[in-house]
Amino acid sequence: MSDIISQYRISTAPYYRPVADEVELFQAAYSVRMPMMLKGPTGCGKTRFVEYMAYTLGKPLITVACNEDMTASDLVGRFLLDAQGTRWQDGPLAIAARYGALCYLDEVVEARQDTTVVIHPLTDNRRVLPLEKKGELIKAHSDFQLVISYNPGYQSLMKDLKQSTKQRFGALDFNYPAHEVETEIIAHETRVTVEVASKLVSIAERARNLKGHGLDEGISTRMLIYAGSLIVAGVDAKNACRVALVRPITDDPDMRDALDAAVMTFF
Amino acid sequence: MSDIISQYRISTAPYYRPVADEVELFQAAYSVRMPMMLKGPTGCGKTRFVEYMAYTLGKPLITVACNEDMTASDLVGRFLLDAQGTRWQDGPLAIAARYGALCYLDEVVEARQDTTVVIHPLTDNRRVLPLEKKGELIKAHSDFQLVISYNPGYQSLMKDLKQSTKQRFGALDFNYPAHEVETEIIAHETRVTVEVASKLVSIAERARNLKGHGLDEGISTRMLIYAGSLIVAGVDAKNACRVALVRPITDDPDMRDALDAAVMTFF
Amino acid sequence: MSDIISQYRISTAPYYRPVADEVELFQAAYSVRMPMMLKGPTGCGKTRFVEYMAYTLGKPLITVACNEDMTASDLVGRFLLDAQGTRWQDGPLAIAARYGALCYLDEVVEARQDTTVVIHPLTDNRRVLPLEKKGELIKAHSDFQLVISYNPGYQSLMKDLKQSTKQRFGALDFNYPAHEVETEIIAHETRVTVEVASKLVSIAERARNLKGHGLDEGISTRMLIYAGSLIVAGVDAKNACRVALVRPITDDPDMRDALDAAVMTFF
Amino acid sequence: MSDIISQYRISTAPYYRPVADEVELFQAAYSVRMPMMLKGPTGCGKTRFVEYMAYTLGKPLITVACNEDMTASDLVGRFLLDAQGTRWQDGPLAIAARYGALCYLDEVVEARQDTTVVIHPLTDNRRVLPLEKKGELIKAHSDFQLVISYNPGYQSLMKDLKQSTKQRFGALDFNYPAHEVETEIIAHETRVTVEVASKLVSIAERARNLKGHGLDEGISTRMLIYAGSLIVAGVDAKNACRVALVRPITDDPDMRDALDAAVMTFF
Amino acid sequence: MSDIISQYRISTAPYYRPVADEVELFQAAYSVRMPMMLKGPTGCGKTRFVEYMAYTLGKPLITVACNEDMTASDLVGRFLLDAQGTRWQDGPLAIAARYGALCYLDEVVEARQDTTVVIHPLTDNRRVLPLEKKGELIKAHSDFQLVISYNPGYQSLMKDLKQSTKQRFGALDFNYPAHEVETEIIAHETRVTVEVASKLVSIAERARNLKGHGLDEGISTRMLIYAGSLIVAGVDAKNACRVALVRPITDDPDMRDALDAAVMTFF
Amino acid sequence: MSDIISQYRISTAPYYRPVADEVELFQAAYSVRMPMMLKGPTGCGKTRFVEYMAYTLGKPLITVACNEDMTASDLVGRFLLDAQGTRWQDGPLAIAARYGALCYLDEVVEARQDTTVVIHPLTDNRRVLPLEKKGELIKAHSDFQLVISYNPGYQSLMKDLKQSTKQRFGALDFNYPAHEVETEIIAHETRVTVEVASKLVSIAERARNLKGHGLDEGISTRMLIYAGSLIVAGVDAKNACRVALVRPITDDPDMRDALDAAVMTFF
Repeated sequence: MSDIISQYRISTAPYYRPVADEVELFQAAYSVRMPMMLKGPTGCGKTRFVEYMAYTLGKPLITVACNEDMTASDLVGRFLLDAQGTRWQDGPLAIAARYGALCYLDEVVEARQDTTVVIHPLTDNRRVLPLEKKGELIKAHSDFQLVISYNPGYQSLMKDLKQSTKQRFGALDFNYPAHEVETEIIAHETRVTVEVASKLVSIAERARNLKGHGLDEGISTRMLIYAGSLIVAGVDAKNACRVALVRPITDDPDMRDALDAAVMTFF
Repeated sequence: MSDIISQYRISTAPYYRPVADEVELFQAAYSVRMPMMLKGPTGCGKTRFVEYMAYTLGKPLITVACNEDMTASDLVGRFLLDAQGTRWQDGPLAIAARYGALCYLDEVVEARQDTTVVIHPLTDNRRVLPLEKKGELIKAHSDFQLVISYNPGYQSLMKDLKQSTKQRFGALDFNYPAHEVETEIIAHETRVTVEVASKLVSIAERARNLKGHGLDEGISTRMLIYAGSLIVAGVDAKNACRVALVRPITDDPDMRDALDAAVMTFF
Repeated sequence: MSDIISQYRISTAPYYRPVADEVELFQAAYSVRMPMMLKGPTGCGKTRFVEYMAYTLGKPLITVACNEDMTASDLVGRFLLDAQGTRWQDGPLAIAARYGALCYLDEVVEARQDTTVVIHPLTDNRRVLPLEKKGELIKAHSDFQLVISYNPGYQSLMKDLKQSTKQRFGALDFNYPAHEVETEIIAHETRVTVEVASKLVSIAERARNLKGHGLDEGISTRMLIYAGSLIVAGVDAKNACRVALVRPITDDPDMRDALDAAVMTFF
Repeated sequence: MSDIISQYRISTAPYYRPVADEVELFQAAYSVRMPMMLKGPTGCGKTRFVEYMAYTLGKPLITVACNEDMTASDLVGRFLLDAQGTRWQDGPLAIAARYGALCYLDEVVEARQDTTVVIHPLTDNRRVLPLEKKGELIKAHSDFQLVISYNPGYQSLMKDLKQSTKQRFGALDFNYPAHEVETEIIAHETRVTVEVASKLVSIAERARNLKGHGLDEGISTRMLIYAGSLIVAGVDAKNACRVALVRPITDDPDMRDALDAAVMTFF
Repeated sequence: MSDIISQYRISTAPYYRPVADEVELFQAAYSVRMPMMLKGPTGCGKTRFVEYMAYTLGKPLITVACNEDMTASDLVGRFLLDAQGTRWQDGPLAIAARYGALCYLDEVVEARQDTTVVIHPLTDNRRVLPLEKKGELIKAHSDFQLVISYNPGYQSLMKDLKQSTKQRFGALDFNYPAHEVETEIIAHETRVTVEVASKLVSIAERARNLKGHGLDEGISTRMLIYAGSLIVAGVDAKNACRVALVRPITDDPDMRDALDAAVMTFF
Repeated sequence: MSDIISQYRISTAPYYRPVADEVELFQAAYSVRMPMMLKGPTGCGKTRFVEYMAYTLGKPLITVACNEDMTASDLVGRFLLDAQGTRWQDGPLAIAARYGALCYLDEVVEARQDTTVVIHPLTDNRRVLPLEKKGELIKAHSDFQLVISYNPGYQSLMKDLKQSTKQRFGALDFNYPAHEVETEIIAHETRVTVEVASKLVSIAERARNLKGHGLDEGISTRMLIYAGSLIVAGVDAKNACRVALVRPITDDPDMRDALDAAVMTFF
C-alpha cells in the first residue's frame, strides 16, 4: 500500500521562485484543507508551484491531466478482471484520498461533467469519496487536499466550470512573472547568461502584448526555457528563437514577421 | 447486509439552524413517505438539511451526486464478473430501497432521463424498484424515502425535469438564511467572532444583489465558511475574502473591482 | 418458471373508479387481443387503470417505465456471463410474451426507435417476438396483450410514435375525472372528508385552466392525493397545498401567486 | 442445423388476395434470384405478401424488423462467450444465406448504413456474405433471396436508401386494394358481413383522402381488421371505429371531428 | 494459413469487356505496386474489373464493402476471447498484407477516418501495417496491392477523402461503356438477343441524360442485366423494364412517366 | 523486452536530401530532448526526415498514424484478457518512453483531445507517462524524444492543436524542395533520367500554383515518384502523369484540363 503512494513523493526540491504571497496563502489554505483553484495562462508555472508546495508540505502529489474523454472511472477507479474474478483498482483520486496525497487535476474544465461532479463530496465538509460501483465510502485521509487548475482566458463559451463547482474552491491568480524574476528563472533553468535570459524575456513580453491581436496566447516561460536550452546546445540565438518561440505558436505570415522582428531587435 | 447500510448511518448530530417550518413539513412528508424535492441555490444548506433530517429521523442516508454521464445502472445496480460467474451488485438506490434509507439525489436534473424515469415506480403508490436486468422487483422498505434537490435558477432551457417527474414530489423552498441566522452559522462553523461573521455575511449580501447583473450566482454560505476558516488560520481578512469569496466566482475585472470594494468597505 | 411470472400477479383489487365505458371497451379489445394505447395527461390514472384491468382479467401485469436510454435488449433480454459460460435472460417483454402477461410500456414515446420497432411483430397477426441474438422465435402466449401509454400534449416535435407503430394499436382517451368522481377518489384514497376533497379538486380545476397559459401541465389527481395525505398527517391545509400542489409545478412568481390565491380561496 | 431453419417454415397457407400481377412478377424475379424491393404505405399488405410468396415457393422466411439501432452484427452474427471460449452465432441474414431462406428486411431504410452495405455482396452476381469477424465467406444457398420493404411517402430527407443500394433491387409497387378487394379481405379476416366490411372500407377511403391534408397516413387495411374484430366481439360499430380507426391516428380535434363524421355517415 | 487465403482465389475467369487501356495501365501500376483508386458511378463495372485483374494477375482478391460504422479493427483485426485467453484474429486488410492478396476497399469514402488513415503506412514506401493492439508490424507481402473505389458524383460535402489519402493512389476513370460494348455485355450476361440488349441500352442512355435533372443516378449496366434476366425468364419486356429499371430508382410521378415513355418507345 | 524495441530499429540508411539546416537544428533539439513539431504540406518529406534522423541518431523509431477514433489507450496501452486474467500491454507511446525510442505521431491534430493531453507530462520537465489504469508512472528513458507532424494549411476551424499543446514543442517548417533538389530526389528514387525528372517537377510546380485556386493541395513529391515509377515500368509519360498526378487530385473538368495542358507542355 505504501508503495503505491511512495512513487508520488517528490524527492528533490523543485525550483520555484515565489512571485507574491502565494506560498503563504496556499499554506494557510492547506492548514484548513480548503480545496484550491490555480488560475492563469498556459506555461506560467502553475504545475511547478504545486510540485513546490507538495515538496514543502512533505506530501505526495498525484497529477492528472484532464481531457474531454476522461471519465469518472478514470479518476475513481474500476474493476479489473483477474484470475480470481474482478478486482478493484483505485484511480488516482481514490489513491490520493485514501493515502493522503495532494491531488492536482490539471485543466479540469476539459473533463466531462461527471468528472467534476465526482469531486463534490470531497470538497465540502463531508470529505468523502463514494466508490459507487464498489459500494465503498472513502473518508478522505487527513493529509488529502484537492487542487485544480483553470485557464480563464482559454475557456470557450461551451465549456466552463459549473458555479456549484467553482464555489467549492479558494482561488489563487497566476500570471507571467515580472521581468527580473522571469530572467532569473530562465538563467537558473538553462544556464544562459542573465543578459541572454533578459533578452529572451523581452521578446516574450512583446509577444504577450500581441495576445488577442492575432495571437491566442503569448510566449510562455516554458518556451523561453526551450529557447535558452537550444542556445546552450550551440544553436545560434536567432535560430533558437525561431524554432522555440515563433514557429510553434503561429502560422500567420504577418504575425511571424512581427515576432521575427522582435527577435532581430534583441539578437 | 446490515453492514452495507450501517456505513450510511450518521453518528453525530449535524449542525443545522432551522429557518422556518421546514423541519416540521419534512417530518409530516416523511410520515406519509411523500417523495420530497428541495429547491434552492448552490451552497445554501440543502445537503446539510437532509443530513440533519436523516439524523433526526434516525435513518441512514445515501447521497448520490448526479451528473449527465450517470446511467440508470449506476443507481440501480449491475452484474459484476466473479470467479463463479456474474454477481449482482445493488446500486445506491437499490440499497436504499431494500434496507430502508433516505436516498438523496443531489442535482437530479443533471442526470440523463433514464436516471429520472427509473425513480418513477418508487414515487407513486407502488413503491417498487424493478431490477429489470436481474428480473427482480424490489418492494421498498417501509423506512425508504426519496429526496431530490433542484436549483431553479440554474437549469438551462435544455435541461429541466419532466412534468411527470415533478408531479411525483412535494417541494420545499430553500434560500440563503436571514442575516442574523447566517451570522450565527458562520460563527458556529468557523469560530470567528460574531462581528467578523456579520461582516462576511454583509459582503455576501452585496454579491447576491449582483446575481443576474454580471454574476451567475451569489456568494454562498459555504464560501463564507471558507473565508472565516482562512481568517481563523491567520490569513488577513482582506486576503481571505479575495481567495475564498472573490476570485473563485468571477474573472471579470469590473465584477472583481465591485466585489473587492465590498470587501474593503467591511474590512 | 411460474415463479418468475407469479411475482407480477396483483393480489388485492386496486381501487379504480370507472369514468365512462373504458372498462368494457378494454375487455372487448382484450377478447380479440388487440394491442391498446392509453392516451392522456400525466397522473390522470392510466397506470391505475391497467392495474385494475389486469386484476379484473386475472392476468399478471409487467410494467416497464420507458426512457430514451432504454435499448431493445432491455425489453427483449440479453446473454449474461455465467460460471458455465453465457446464459440467456429474458427481458420483461419476453417474459410477458412467453408466460402470458399484460405488458404495459409506460410513456413508450420516450424510448428509442429500436424499442418501438421490436414490438411490431407482437402487434400484428403473427404475434411473435424474435429473439434475434438467441436465434429463438417466441410465439406469444394466448393470454399475452400489449398496452402502451402516450401523453399527446406532451410530445415534442422531435419525438413522436411512428405512424406504422400507432396503426398497430386501438386507442382509449383518458382525462382528469369529473368533479364528483375525482372528489370521491381523493376522499377514498386519503381519508380526508368529502368537503376537503372537493376543495382540493376545485383548486386543481383552476390550475388546469392555466395549462398552456404559463403552466405546462395542470395539477394531477396524484398530487391531490399527496395534499390530502399531508392534511391527514396534521399539516395545515394551506401549507399542505403549497408543498404538494404549488411549489412542485412552477417557479414562476406570478404563477405561484395565482395558484396560492386559488388555495386561499378554498382554505 | 435443419432445426434452425425449419422454425422459419410457414406451415399453413397465409390468406393473400392478389391485386394485380404481383405474384407472377415475384415468381419470375425469384426464378432469377433477383433481389426485390416492395414499395408502399404502412399496413397495405407487404408483409403478408412476402409470407404468401414464401409459402407458395415452399421456402422458409426470415423476417427482420429494421431499426436505427440495429448493427451489421445483428444481421450477420457475432461471437458469444461460451464455457469453451467464444462461439460464433449466425445472425438472421447469415442463416438465410447459409440454409436457403427468403430474408425479408422490413423498413430497411430505418437501419444504419452499415446494415445496408452489408447486403451488397449478396445482391450482385457474387451472392456472397463475408463474415469478416469470423474470416468466413458464405456463398449463398441457391434458394436464398433477399427482399426489402420501403415506404416512399414516409422517408425523411435525412434518411433514404443510397442509390448504390436501390440499384441492386427490382421493385414492386403496393397500395391499398380496390374497394371490393379490400371488403373481401376484411370480411374474410374478421367474419363481419360484407355489408359492414364495405362500410369500414368506405370510412378508410375518406381518411385516405385526408392524407397530406392533416393526416400523415390514411387508415390501413390492418386497422379495418381491428375495427371489424371489435364489432364481432360485440362492440357497437361506432365505438369500434373510434377505438380502432380514429383515436389511434390523430389527436387533432378538427381531424377527429372529420373522421367521426365519416363514421357517423356509414354507421 | 494457406487455407485462409486460398478461399479468396478466383477459380474461373470473370467476364470483363475492356473499354480502353485500363487493363494495361493497371498491370503497369501493379508492376510497381502503386496503390490504385477506381473512380466512377455505381454499377458501371469497377468491382468486376478488379475481379478480372486479380484473376489475370493470378492473385487472390479480398473485397471489403466499406461503411460508416466500420472501424479500423474491422480492417486490421482484433483479439478474440478463447479457452486459452485472448487470440488475435487478422482482419481482411491484415490477411491481404500478410499473405499477398489484392485488397479492394469498395466505396472507401463511406468509412470513418480511422479506417482510411490505417491504410497510409501501406501506401507509401514503407509498405507496413502496424497492428498497434498486438504490437506487431506486418511488412506487406511482395504480391500485396491496395485498390479502392470512389464515386465522385456521389460524395456529399461532408464526406470526402482527405488529400493526404488521395495523393497515395494512382487513379483510373470508369464510366458506362459505349453503346455497342454495353449491348455486347448485356447480351453475354443475360442471353437476350443483341436487338433486345441494344434496346435496353438505349433506355438506359435516356435515363442517364436525366441525371442531375431529377434523377440522382442513371440506370446502371447492372440494372440492364436484371431487366434482361427477367425477359429471359419470360416476363413481358415492358413489365421487366418497369420492375428492374424504373420503379427502383424513382418515386417521382413525372420521372416515372418520362422513364415509362422511354420504355414504350423501344418496346 | 529488447525484442519489442528492436523491430523499430532502421537497418538501412533512408535516402534523405537535406534542404536547409533542418538536420542540425533537429540534432540540437534532440541533444536537449526538446519535443519537436514538423510543419508542412502532405507528401513533402516529413516522414522520411524523421526516419533519416532516427537512423542518424541511431535510435529506434515508432510511428503512429493518428486519427479521430484513436483513444488515449491506443497510445498508452491497455489490459488484455489472458489465461491468467488480465495482462497489461504497453501501447506505442509507452514502449517508446520505456525503452528509449523516437515516437512520431503523424498528423496528431486528427486525434481526439485525450490523445493530445496524454503527451503533456512527457513534454515538460517531468518527462513522465502516467499509466493511470495500471497505476504506474513511467519515467521516460533518456533516449526518448517525441516528434509530431502538423499540416497548417489543412486544419479546419474545428480542429486545431490547443495552445497549451503547441507551446510544448519546438517547430521546423517543411515545404516542397527547390527545383534542382526535387529533380535529384525523383531521379534517385525512380531511376528516370534527370531530364524526365525535371519535367515532372515542372508539372508539379504549375499545380502547386493552383493551390487555393481550385486545388486543395498541389502535386506532392510522392506523386512525382509514382509518375516516374510508371514511366520506368514502360507507361507512356502522358498516361503516367494522368494516372499518377492529375486524376487522383481533382474531378473538376476545368482543373483537369489545366493540369492536362501542363502535362502536354512538358511531354
